[in-house]
Amino acid sequence: MKIDGTPWRTLWPIDDGRAVAIIDQTLLPHRFETRELHSLEAAAEAIATMRVRGAPLIGATAAYGLALGLREDPSDAGLRRARERLLATRPTASNLAWALRRIIPAVQALPEAQRFDAAFARAGALCDEDVAINEAIGDHGLGVIRDLLAARGDDGPFHILTHCNAGWLATVDWGTALAPIYKAFDAGIDVHVWVDETRPRNQGAALTAWELAAHGVPHDVIVDNAGGHLMQHGQVDLVITGTDRTVRSGDVCNKIGTYLKALAARDNGVPFYVALPGPTIDWALADGVRDIPIEERDPREVTHIQGLDEDGGVLREVRLTPPGVSARNFAFDVTPARLVTGLITERGVCEASEAGLLGLYPDGAFEAGAA
Amino acid sequence: MKIDGTPWRTLWPIDDGRAVAIIDQTLLPHRFETRELHSLEAAAEAIATMRVRGAPLIGATAAYGLALGLREDPSDAGLRRARERLLATRPTASNLAWALRRIIPAVQALPEAQRFDAAFARAGALCDEDVAINEAIGDHGLGVIRDLLAARGDDGPFHILTHCNAGWLATVDWGTALAPIYKAFDAGIDVHVWVDETRPRNQGAALTAWELAAHGVPHDVIVDNAGGHLMQHGQVDLVITGTDRTVRSGDVCNKIGTYLKALAARDNGVPFYVALPGPTIDWALADGVRDIPIEERDPREVTHIQGLDEDGGVLREVRLTPPGVSARNFAFDVTPARLVTGLITERGVCEASEAGLLGLYPDGAFEAGAA
Repeated sequence: MKIDGTPWRTLWPIDDGRAVAIIDQTLLPHRFETRELHSLEAAAEAIATMRVRGAPLIGATAAYGLALGLREDPSDAGLRRARERLLATRPTASNLAWALRRIIPAVQALPEAQRFDAAFARAGALCDEDVAINEAIGDHGLGVIRDLLAARGDDGPFHILTHCNAGWLATVDWGTALAPIYKAFDAGIDVHVWVDETRPRNQGAALTAWELAAHGVPHDVIVDNAGGHLMQHGQVDLVITGTDRTVRSGDVCNKIGTYLKALAARDNGVPFYVALPGPTIDWALADGVRDIPIEERDPREVTHIQGLDEDGGVLREVRLTPPGVSARNFAFDVTPARLVTGLITERGVCEASEAGLLGLYPDGAFEAGAA
Repeated sequence: MKIDGTPWRTLWPIDDGRAVAIIDQTLLPHRFETRELHSLEAAAEAIATMRVRGAPLIGATAAYGLALGLREDPSDAGLRRARERLLATRPTASNLAWALRRIIPAVQALPEAQRFDAAFARAGALCDEDVAINEAIGDHGLGVIRDLLAARGDDGPFHILTHCNAGWLATVDWGTALAPIYKAFDAGIDVHVWVDETRPRNQGAALTAWELAAHGVPHDVIVDNAGGHLMQHGQVDLVITGTDRTVRSGDVCNKIGTYLKALAARDNGVPFYVALPGPTIDWALADGVRDIPIEERDPREVTHIQGLDEDGGVLREVRLTPPGVSARNFAFDVTPARLVTGLITERGVCEASEAGLLGLYPDGAFEAGAA
């Protein structure tokens, strides 16, 4: 997507294909800075500290991280070490493991001297594939919006609520949940987005608001508590979120708080759709609430917050809680399939169920059986 | 309740009954400062800027504010002006109007020279009554906790989730939702509290965490997004919240986001109770979602946040969002009676329904008819 008229991706090769650069998302929306990743450790650190975040972008960065690890040590041991280091960064998103599975077998079959170049090229191909997938999600999601608009039968603004950031910043380009919104806006539909701030890391207030503004899409930031009230009062026509992992039953793991919005959508008859690229489907699991491991992060993300001190124009961290308070920080929750109106994928829209997913991904059955 | 072993209330008469003092809650948990209110305007400002907050404490402060207004101008016109100034501070809580209704007719019947002293004395009586009401809520809520513990049949920690601050800081003393928790803790029950931080003003992270710590009650601060996940995983035995206004059907208006927690409680079979003093019942209204006016506050409360800069030990405000972002800030939502397991009042526990409320407040019917 564009920033001030210039097209960007969230990561891109530099140094004639010997390293990659990223947008450091921990500084947005206050500072726009890029950062070069020249080593496996730099890539792993960027994922773990959320300089890059969002399931698809984590997968793409991990793919390049694996390549950078092979530049340092192309042996089988080096490959194993790189894989383990990257898998340890974030436990919930399934794209990370998927991206590594896509690259490792092919690379392992090669002589050590060819491994780095081959892995780097495959990481690039995986990025291009992500962009194509997300644009297709946007097209199918646009169909959902058009259908809902037609059913509503009036011309007022079409209000979409989204949680966290599943925009182009969460992917290589386009985004997942925001791709249909960009498509609708570009098609001249009068969309307005309710942006959940998404505590504790405020990816909505910081990233979704920033990228929607850069593209010119009308939006309002709200606290995560507000969505139910808006839905009770007819102010939400559609909820779309992304997902970090969808299990084969259609249960959807996404940023903590998504489940609460799905409950409110159900209680008020608001359609609740989840946008996902095929690689986020985990065919091995059936019960998302029971089986998906939920990352618990540093409580400091709850007790402290970073923002811009407008007096000095500098970023500062302030403490919100009493000194020494105990806090817990669960990063994701799982929305049961029964609350999901539909899944928007690059292959089309389906019911959130094993039958629905298998209708679009008949090959998924084999992966599920093999797991 | 106690701070460092010393008993406090949230407001108290000073200057031989010519003014009152409050704890400035906008500075908690980082600074503990008291503030004197010597005028109607000071009282109105303290309510509007939330130096005092919580429906019962707003009512008590408004009562003293009315008295201070009468000290400045004891005429009927002065009385009217004071009433209007105070009613304009916060539109949602019904205690404010209730407190004024309790005092105005009696004072208006007096000669001007006696009005201030009479109003001041009645404000003090109203405060004592609030303390007695809240302690009775605590006793009845303790019964609910004992029953749930007995039904569970094991000795592990009893986890209670609460939203916002309905503790002693929200009342004159004891609190509403927290009164049963203090009673249970004092009775030796192994309670643990999940404290919703309660964006945008963070009354949970700032005030509930502070007062629970001062009393020694085990607790963890969580983001507002986390409650559904905890309930899905059996980590919540009971939800108790306060309320700013309960209509006669049992619909409950409380801090924005309460409705989302009630939905999650229902979806997971977790009991959801609301603690309320009789004066928060609005007998005139029947449909809370449709009829209760929801205060919309300054968007700056969403886009900016105040905390302690630990480097300098000073309070600072930082901006969380991109510059110039649009935000909306709805302060309350309404939880329909169908999601409320029971109402805990000073007269006992009842079903969230007109029949339930009339069982405890048979006189309520007259007020409803008269409205």
